[in-house]
Amino acid sequence: MGIREDAQRVMDAALRAAQPAEAVRRALRQLEFPAGGRVVAVAVGKAAFAMAAAALEELGERIGRGIVITKYGHAPGELPRFVIREAGHPSPDGNTFSATGEAMRMVEGLGPEDTVLTLISGGGSALFESPLVTPEELQDITRQLLRAGADIRETNAVRKRLSRVKGGRFALHCQPARVASVLLSDVIGDPPDVIASGPTVQDRTTCRDALAVAKKYGLALSAQAAECLRTETPRSLPPGPVLVTGSVRELCRAAEKEAGRLGYRAQVLTDSLVCQAREAGSVLASVARYHQGSEESLAFILGGETVVVVRGKGRGGRNQELALSAAEGIAGCRDTAVFSLGSDGTDGPTDAAGGYADGDTAAKLAAAGISVHGALQDNDAYPALQAVGGLLMTGPTGTNVNDLSVLLIRRHP
Amino acid sequence: MGIREDAQRVMDAALRAAQPAEAVRRALRQLEFPAGGRVVAVAVGKAAFAMAAAALEELGERIGRGIVITKYGHAPGELPRFVIREAGHPSPDGNTFSATGEAMRMVEGLGPEDTVLTLISGGGSALFESPLVTPEELQDITRQLLRAGADIRETNAVRKRLSRVKGGRFALHCQPARVASVLLSDVIGDPPDVIASGPTVQDRTTCRDALAVAKKYGLALSAQAAECLRTETPRSLPPGPVLVTGSVRELCRAAEKEAGRLGYRAQVLTDSLVCQAREAGSVLASVARYHQGSEESLAFILGGETVVVVRGKGRGGRNQELALSAAEGIAGCRDTAVFSLGSDGTDGPTDAAGGYADGDTAAKLAAAGISVHGALQDNDAYPALQAVGGLLMTGPTGTNVNDLSVLLIRRHP
Repeated sequence: MGIREDAQRVMDAALRAAQPAEAVRRALRQLEFPAGGRVVAVAVGKAAFAMAAAALEELGERIGRGIVITKYGHAPGELPRFVIREAGHPSPDGNTFSATGEAMRMVEGLGPEDTVLTLISGGGSALFESPLVTPEELQDITRQLLRAGADIRETNAVRKRLSRVKGGRFALHCQPARVASVLLSDVIGDPPDVIASGPTVQDRTTCRDALAVAKKYGLALSAQAAECLRTETPRSLPPGPVLVTGSVRELCRAAEKEAGRLGYRAQVLTDSLVCQAREAGSVLASVARYHQGSEESLAFILGGETVVVVRGKGRGGRNQELALSAAEGIAGCRDTAVFSLGSDGTDGPTDAAGGYADGDTAAKLAAAGISVHGALQDNDAYPALQAVGGLLMTGPTGTNVNDLSVLLIRRHP
Repeated sequence: MGIREDAQRVMDAALRAAQPAEAVRRALRQLEFPAGGRVVAVAVGKAAFAMAAAALEELGERIGRGIVITKYGHAPGELPRFVIREAGHPSPDGNTFSATGEAMRMVEGLGPEDTVLTLISGGGSALFESPLVTPEELQDITRQLLRAGADIRETNAVRKRLSRVKGGRFALHCQPARVASVLLSDVIGDPPDVIASGPTVQDRTTCRDALAVAKKYGLALSAQAAECLRTETPRSLPPGPVLVTGSVRELCRAAEKEAGRLGYRAQVLTDSLVCQAREAGSVLASVARYHQGSEESLAFILGGETVVVVRGKGRGGRNQELALSAAEGIAGCRDTAVFSLGSDGTDGPTDAAGGYADGDTAAKLAAAGISVHGALQDNDAYPALQAVGGLLMTGPTGTNVNDLSVLLIRRHP
């Protein structure tokens, strides 16, 4: 088997592990539900349907009832004992508010032996909302924050206080039932209280933060809204497990495991890579060069998300640029490959998930009359990689947990 | 002992190992000299004096005679049984040619049991030369190549054929004596036939290359010079050991060894890092974040040379930018440090060798009212690091084998 096939296997295993269904099942296996107690599932976010389906598969009849609140067009069918609701995203609408109300009523009247299982994914901030101000004012304040250039922390400090469910308030509302949360993480390094504005997680912002933001940006607020900002979110929540799953960390670990299975000594270097794509490619190539002739097969795994500084008018994406840049640095290295892909199957505005390069890629590019330097300068990695069979095509993968970049070096036989 | 002290020890050990004297001694211990045979030492280059002194220290009376050819002002004294010559650099002059002639005569009349020990360092291309054309034409052709923008490989293909000593011709001249070469490498990834134009190493360029260069740039050549380009350098040299020492690889390995001694699981990631300094800092910080809470102390070591894209008007250097950029990414990480330094003790146009940052650096900078982002934008790392005690000052180290960048993560006690 060639190194290209090894790369394919590592990639497939990582993408499988990052599937919401698989990630949810893995998390649920770590939870315990008191025997005899009821389980009510509340799934919100763009992956709510898949998360609820996976929970049903894992827990079956243990889930007595549930609700899915997801984006329009994101609920492909029905689920037993679940209410399915679709609503507006990225702006909440009337259906958001009514569905959130349904969820709130569904968890009322439970006892301490019962569990509310919240399944939360990206988009949850918009899709799970019951505002303490009028929908019009909520929208207006959101716009004011946006226009003023408030960052995510500032926006959250304000938004959480205008909501009945954000900032841990939904967890409080579930009492006396126990709350267990499974968070599908698709944001690099995001703390649980930021994902979907943390409906079941202790808020780390304060009234003081919120009021400072209002002052800093001169927000126009109704008396009611101003009062909301002065009202604190729950300072201590009843304890309940919070599991972050399907994260880029798990993507990396799955790649590490599969590479190990294929005989590589595998090592995750980071799961929070943030740098320029082509620089990351240079760094990986320099690591590759050092380890040429190693007596073991080696795999170096990096997760995160690189950026591209767009200067040219070509086609490409950050992962393709990373691979193309590495191609130059590993030119002539035997049994050495670098690949990089977006876990959602999309890399930049292209239909490729990412790029693959090995020690022969530079020679193939030269033979095709393509200059690596020129292609990088023009941000034109797509046609370059396409010409040498270096595009990774996966189609939509059903997940989105940042990028995976891998360097493989096979021991020479 | 704090992590700052660990960093200092790793740095000191690496710099010690990269000293020309230490590097030469280490290499000589790997060589064997036939008992009864004579040893003649020919040391050329900017570090020739230090290399010859180290060889005398290691081999003592075994060296029967020798010659040092170095740059003006680079021979601080006398050495027993050695002739000391100083000559022009970067352009050869009359003293170059006469000293090279002396060296050639010194190795004549040796037998197969005798050894010519060549000790070669940077600057050797200019300092060791006996041209086959007039000095004026040699200078003229060099200028033509320079003006036309010829690269190092092209220049070498021509220059080697105009010389009596370059491209392996000196080794041929030494026959029937055995030739042993110790090369002090100060150029990242440079092959032995490029260092000092490879007087004792098989030339990898050909007449065909040389003639193609002459044609490509339309070189004006005398009939004599044209004939030289048609005359091949030795295609097979008598076998003799070629040891590259004092390289960035040895710098890294010494750092790895010392970190290991201090209890870190240490790993060299690369010895040929080439990327933007601040991006390298980001990558190291992302590696640091991933390994927080590790049950072992970890050290990641990188050698090479980063670059700075100068946009601002501040003071700093590539190593200082790397450390400052990392400071941001490791903010708040306990027992975590990144340092980076130029092995010659000079980083950019400053008196610092490089920079140091740990998990507290960002907070100290903030307290001092210094923005990391602003300092990086203005290429103004020096005063920023100075304000928080983050400058590494070594003074001239007596060596120059690229940069060393290290990430240390201490296990929490």
